[in-house]
Amino acid sequence: MSLVTLLDYASVLVFALTGALVASRAQLDIVGFAFISCLTAVGGGTVRDLLLGRDEVFWVADLNHILLATGAAVAVFFSAHLVESRLRWVIWLDSFALAIAVSAGTGAAVAMGKPAVIVVLMGMATGSLGGLMRDVVVGEVPLVLKQGELYITCAMSGAMVAVAALSFGLASGLALILCAMVCWGLRAGSIAFGWHLPVYKSRPPRS
Amino acid sequence: MSLVTLLDYASVLVFALTGALVASRAQLDIVGFAFISCLTAVGGGTVRDLLLGRDEVFWVADLNHILLATGAAVAVFFSAHLVESRLRWVIWLDSFALAIAVSAGTGAAVAMGKPAVIVVLMGMATGSLGGLMRDVVVGEVPLVLKQGELYITCAMSGAMVAVAALSFGLASGLALILCAMVCWGLRAGSIAFGWHLPVYKSRPPRS
Amino acid sequence: MSLVTLLDYASVLVFALTGALVASRAQLDIVGFAFISCLTAVGGGTVRDLLLGRDEVFWVADLNHILLATGAAVAVFFSAHLVESRLRWVIWLDSFALAIAVSAGTGAAVAMGKPAVIVVLMGMATGSLGGLMRDVVVGEVPLVLKQGELYITCAMSGAMVAVAALSFGLASGLALILCAMVCWGLRAGSIAFGWHLPVYKSRPPRS
Repeated sequence: MSLVTLLDYASVLVFALTGALVASRAQLDIVGFAFISCLTAVGGGTVRDLLLGRDEVFWVADLNHILLATGAAVAVFFSAHLVESRLRWVIWLDSFALAIAVSAGTGAAVAMGKPAVIVVLMGMATGSLGGLMRDVVVGEVPLVLKQGELYITCAMSGAMVAVAALSFGLASGLALILCAMVCWGLRAGSIAFGWHLPVYKSRPPRS
Repeated sequence: MSLVTLLDYASVLVFALTGALVASRAQLDIVGFAFISCLTAVGGGTVRDLLLGRDEVFWVADLNHILLATGAAVAVFFSAHLVESRLRWVIWLDSFALAIAVSAGTGAAVAMGKPAVIVVLMGMATGSLGGLMRDVVVGEVPLVLKQGELYITCAMSGAMVAVAALSFGLASGLALILCAMVCWGLRAGSIAFGWHLPVYKSRPPRS
Repeated sequence: MSLVTLLDYASVLVFALTGALVASRAQLDIVGFAFISCLTAVGGGTVRDLLLGRDEVFWVADLNHILLATGAAVAVFFSAHLVESRLRWVIWLDSFALAIAVSAGTGAAVAMGKPAVIVVLMGMATGSLGGLMRDVVVGEVPLVLKQGELYITCAMSGAMVAVAALSFGLASGLALILCAMVCWGLRAGSIAFGWHLPVYKSRPPRS
C-alpha cells in the first residue's frame, strides 16, 4: 500500500471519529452517526477529486473508505458515553485528521504533477472542507473560522513545507510526513498554548 | 419514457413543491421561490451525477427538469395561501419526494453497473441532499438531522431493499417501486406514529 | 485578453474584496481573510465549470485568479479600518461583483454553445453562488435570500437580456456589457431606492 493510500485511510478514519462525536453531541441515531461520519471523512477529498478532474472520486473507486467511516461511526455510537469530555476529543482528533488529510491531499496533487500553488490549495481543501461541511450541516460555528485559532494557517504551512521540501529534493514520503508534523505541531500549539495570528481589529471610525 | 426518467421527473416536481413552500415560509419573492425550488429539486441528483462522473448533469442535458421545477414554484407562489398548514405539507410532500428520489438515484446507479454499496449511497445522496441544501440555505434545521425521526434510515432501507430484490432476480422496475414503497412507508410511519431508532444518550460522566 | 477572461478576473477581484470585508466583520486572521476571499471569488465559477463538465476548473487552469483574490484579501486586512461603514461597502461591492460575474458566467456558457435556458442558469449560478457560500460559511443570512431585495432577479434579468441581445444579432462583447449594466442597474435600484418584487404574503387561514 502506498503512503498516499495509507494517509487517505488514516484521515478517513480519524475524521469519521470526529464526525461521530459531533453526531453524539447532537444526539442523532446510529444512521445519523454514519451519515455525519461519512460526510466528514470523505467531504474534503471529494471536493479535491472533483476540482482536479480525476476520473473517479476516491471513495467511489474504493469502497473501503466508506466501510471504514461507517465502522468508526458504529463504534463511537456504542462507546462515546465512556468519554468524559467529548468536545475536547473532537478538537484533538480533528487536529490529527487535519494534519493527515492535508498530507494526503498534498500527496495526491503532487502525484498528478500539479504546480506548487495548486498543490498547496488541494492540501488545504482536503484538510479543511470535510470538517467545514460537518460543522455547517450540524449548525455549529466551523472550527475553520473560530477566532484566534490557527486552522487553515496550519494546513497552508504544512502543505507549503512539503512543496519546499520536495523542491529541495527530499523524498516524497518524507516530505509528506514533514507536512503532517508541521501542520499538527502548529495546530496543537494553537489548542494547547493559544498560538494564533493577530486577528483583524477595526479602529473606531474617524469622528 | 423509461421508469428511471419518470421517477426523475416526479422527484423534481415534488421536491420543487417543498422548496416553494419553504420559500413561502421565508416570504421570498417569486424569483426566490424558483431559486429554492430548483435548488431542492435538482440538488441531490446533481451531486450524484458529479460523483458518478456522468458526462452531463441530468438537468443540463434535459431542460424539462428546470422548467418543471420553475412551474411548480410559480404555481405555489399563487396558491400557497390556500393551504392551511404549510409546514405539514412540506413534511408530507418531502416524504414522497424522498421516496421517489431514492428510487431514481438507485435506478441511475444500477443502470451504470455500480457495486451494491455505491448504489445504496447514490440512492441516499439523491434522496437526501436536495432537501439538505434547501434547509441549510434557508437556515432551518435540516430534516435529515432532526432528532427522533427516521430520515436517512428510510433512504438507506429503500435502497438496500432494491439491491436485495435485484440480486434475487426481481425485474428492475419492480425493485425500484418496492424501494420507493419501503422508503415512504418507513418515513410515513415516522411522521404519523413517531417511529424512530434509539438516539444516542450520553450517560452522566463518571464522578 | 478576451472580454470573458477580463470579466472573470474582474469578478474574482471584486468578490474577493467583499469576502475580505465579511472576514473583517468576523474578526478573522489574515489567512482566514484569504480563505473567505478565495471561496467567494471562485465559488460560483467553480460550480459552473463542474456543471458544464469543463475539462479543468478555471482557477486550477490559471493560477492568477487565486493570487489576485489572495492579494485583495491582504490589502483589505491592512486597510479595512480606513473604511467607515464596512457593511455598506460589502453590499455595494457585491452588487458590482454580481453584475460582472453574471456576465462572465453567461459568456462562458455562450462560448460553449449551450442552449438559452442553460446560459441563463449558468449566469445566475456564477453570479450568486460565491456570495451564497460566503454567507452560509460565515453564518449570515445570505444576501440572495434577504426579503424585499432584488438579487437573483437581477442576475436572471441580466442573463436574459444578453441571450435576447445575442439572438437579435448583437456582438457578443456588447451583449455581455449590456448584461452587466442591466444586472447592476436593477440591483443598485434595489439597494438605493428599495425596488423589489412583491413578496409572498400568506392570507390568514380560512376560519
